[in-house]
Amino acid sequence: MRNIKLILEYDGTGFFGFQKQPRQPTIQGELEKALFRLFRQNIKIKSASGRTDSGVHAACQVVHFLTDAPMACRQIQTGLNHFLPASISVMSVTEESEKFHARYQAKKKIYTYSVWNHLSRSPLRDAFFYHLPISLDLKKMKKAARGLIGKHDFRSFQANSQAGKKSSVRTVYRLDIKKRGDVIEFEVEGNGFLHHMVRNMVGTLIEVGMGRIEAREVSRILRAKDRRKAGYTVPAKGLLLKDVTYGE
Amino acid sequence: MRNIKLILEYDGTGFFGFQKQPRQPTIQGELEKALFRLFRQNIKIKSASGRTDSGVHAACQVVHFLTDAPMACRQIQTGLNHFLPASISVMSVTEESEKFHARYQAKKKIYTYSVWNHLSRSPLRDAFFYHLPISLDLKKMKKAARGLIGKHDFRSFQANSQAGKKSSVRTVYRLDIKKRGDVIEFEVEGNGFLHHMVRNMVGTLIEVGMGRIEAREVSRILRAKDRRKAGYTVPAKGLLLKDVTYGE
Repeated sequence: MRNIKLILEYDGTGFFGFQKQPRQPTIQGELEKALFRLFRQNIKIKSASGRTDSGVHAACQVVHFLTDAPMACRQIQTGLNHFLPASISVMSVTEESEKFHARYQAKKKIYTYSVWNHLSRSPLRDAFFYHLPISLDLKKMKKAARGLIGKHDFRSFQANSQAGKKSSVRTVYRLDIKKRGDVIEFEVEGNGFLHHMVRNMVGTLIEVGMGRIEAREVSRILRAKDRRKAGYTVPAKGLLLKDVTYGE
Repeated sequence: MRNIKLILEYDGTGFFGFQKQPRQPTIQGELEKALFRLFRQNIKIKSASGRTDSGVHAACQVVHFLTDAPMACRQIQTGLNHFLPASISVMSVTEESEKFHARYQAKKKIYTYSVWNHLSRSPLRDAFFYHLPISLDLKKMKKAARGLIGKHDFRSFQANSQAGKKSSVRTVYRLDIKKRGDVIEFEVEGNGFLHHMVRNMVGTLIEVGMGRIEAREVSRILRAKDRRKAGYTVPAKGLLLKDVTYGE
């Protein structure tokens, strides 16, 4: 069997996340429909680098599937794009060794969270930015962000419904906050992220920027391992899976 | 009467251009509806820096209107944004002298035209980029662009329906073409633009990049003053009114 790797870009608006669900449009669901139409047989996505949530976007989602069809990679790319809705696109198709696994071999992931920080909404950015018309103290936010870097138990930033099921220890390598004009971009790189972890970290840092949480409090929130101590969950629309790194 | 200047941002998708029309949604039409709802009286937009076409976007469209209502600028901004559709936003409101005129006093305008130059479409850029899955020779395009800079009769790049009505002499100060990754951005600055002029210049330069028109041919096309000699009109969705400069 050939092991085919796809890199996907998608606008997550209107999808109920990556993972297939019985009666809701999802990225995996649309992709498997397109695979069926192209190959005329049921092909399942073996895995994805991560399951993005409802409304979350991706510039670089990696998935793979197995097939014995002799179709060329370029033909798979244009064929799938023909059958996929306009909000999902296959950006690259490559044939990998049988050992390649999109989830297990993902070593690092980068997510960005984009905020439009202006009194008025921005129609040109509306789809992919969270509009926050409140002034924020960037310096305090950057200070607080440093307390989240490293290998920690991130249970305080995990969605309640998921807590306690598996290990909630993750490593955050980097958490940058940049302001250009009225745009604030959070960029976080880690070996993996718990459910809602990025959105809960960003919400907590925004509350620091608003003055509702002290910057030094963030390390204490982390140690508490209690979701109720952390800040709010920012909306999905500002979140983008930007890149995934593979390696042995 | 107070002379109020607004800076608007809009996603032109779904609008029949700036200028009011009897039965179609337009930017001016929506703005005058919002003015009526806010001020409870009919207020006309006196002028705009330029009339963007159907489907064209703006990051900085300048308009003005007269009123004797004592409402504060900030209240006008939040009030209009409350009544406007999400695809139009008032980014700034200022009170100007009675001499200020959004159209007559506009000295320079900057338009950008954005191309997504990749085999696959880009869902994250779909709304504001023209997807062109053909490789282009940037060097030739840049060479050809130099022939369009300066004060010229741009009749060859004017929409047929408008030709001959008024002077078609304009000055293009700058026409930059930049490639970053798979994005090609055209940025043109001029004292004014004829109907479809930017889209026809970009279409002509793209044909140069494809090898269908020789770079040196572009000066000859300009001199011909004949629309039929120039290239195709690129789609509206890639065009953005980026900035307007005022001065005496």
